[in-house]
Amino acid sequence: MTPDGTTNETAAGRTRLERQLAFIIEADRLKGVLRRTTLCDGSRRENSAEHSWHLALMAMVFGQEAAEGIDTARVVRMVLVHDLVEIDAGDTFAYDAVGNEDREQREQRAAERIFGLLPPDQHAEFRALWDEFEAHATPEARLAVALDRLQPLLNNDVSGGGSWREHGITRAQVLHRMAPIERGLPALWPSVLDIVERNCALGYIRADVEAPSR
Amino acid sequence: MTPDGTTNETAAGRTRLERQLAFIIEADRLKGVLRRTTLCDGSRRENSAEHSWHLALMAMVFGQEAAEGIDTARVVRMVLVHDLVEIDAGDTFAYDAVGNEDREQREQRAAERIFGLLPPDQHAEFRALWDEFEAHATPEARLAVALDRLQPLLNNDVSGGGSWREHGITRAQVLHRMAPIERGLPALWPSVLDIVERNCALGYIRADVEAPSR
Repeated sequence: MTPDGTTNETAAGRTRLERQLAFIIEADRLKGVLRRTTLCDGSRRENSAEHSWHLALMAMVFGQEAAEGIDTARVVRMVLVHDLVEIDAGDTFAYDAVGNEDREQREQRAAERIFGLLPPDQHAEFRALWDEFEAHATPEARLAVALDRLQPLLNNDVSGGGSWREHGITRAQVLHRMAPIERGLPALWPSVLDIVERNCALGYIRADVEAPSR
Repeated sequence: MTPDGTTNETAAGRTRLERQLAFIIEADRLKGVLRRTTLCDGSRRENSAEHSWHLALMAMVFGQEAAEGIDTARVVRMVLVHDLVEIDAGDTFAYDAVGNEDREQREQRAAERIFGLLPPDQHAEFRALWDEFEAHATPEARLAVALDRLQPLLNNDVSGGGSWREHGITRAQVLHRMAPIERGLPALWPSVLDIVERNCALGYIRADVEAPSR
């Protein structure tokens, strides 16, 4: 066992600093993981690293509006690490039912490997943040999840329908996907509904199949 | 004057929420500002949004190593906003003496416009973080600046010389640029010197012009 409590055999002989640098360098790969959402100007698909930055900035802006006494700094930390598992597991499109079937298993393995690059104390700390995000159970996690839903909604709205339009997503699918915003960031919910209805009226979000056609 | 204290005429009639959303959407443009540094895999130039995310993650990892009692959460917030002025002012290459002459003026105007999109209380809060970063005067700002120097060093090292090699940067220029790391994150300084010397030996960083040739 090394002085910092390392027991992982594959990391034998690595100092605390070497492990931290290995994690930092590995994290760079998140910049190469592409999401379905585009930038607001529609010029290209967004990657998960810049998306995570955008969420952290949103947490700074909306933290105090979300709920009394929320720990905004933890929300920021949570969104900064929430997508790191995609380095191994890839980004699974929110509306892809098949891809989401084994998503959890793939992401659990990824979390073990990627956070496991860190020294044990930081491995535990970062892993706990990711577990908290995934569980959606604390006010901080609910805000983080709400921001993760709100950001692509804004980008799709500004870019003229974005991934909704490209993949023929329906109103019911969007509303189901956005539901966590009502709970995690209720001040924004009326704006979300406005955006959804406007994009339905424009034909960028498909009318629900079970609803009478317009 | 609006209920949230808005006096800026150009923002007349905008609610707090509308101002926050306008800022969030404007911030998306930072994803289109390219830096000279490439990703670690050398595949493309890095943009300032994903760079800011990388620094925030590094602040989480190195915060507790930097100095006793440092407010890591403020360092994280500082690096998240430190490059937003580049939306208007562009990224000025660290080794570009001419471009750096009017950099401060361009960035001051940009800060006024971009942070001014926010409601007045958040305008003041975000602006103060940026001013603190620029002044390099607090332990938190010194760590933030150190991370801002360390990250491109790591990327250049991993990608085989990166922007040093492309622009023929010398050892003296690199050491001058990296000097804030010795003060802001001293635990990393020996690693920085190792990386610089290794890249000099490989010819990726040019020997100093005044030094005898190797």
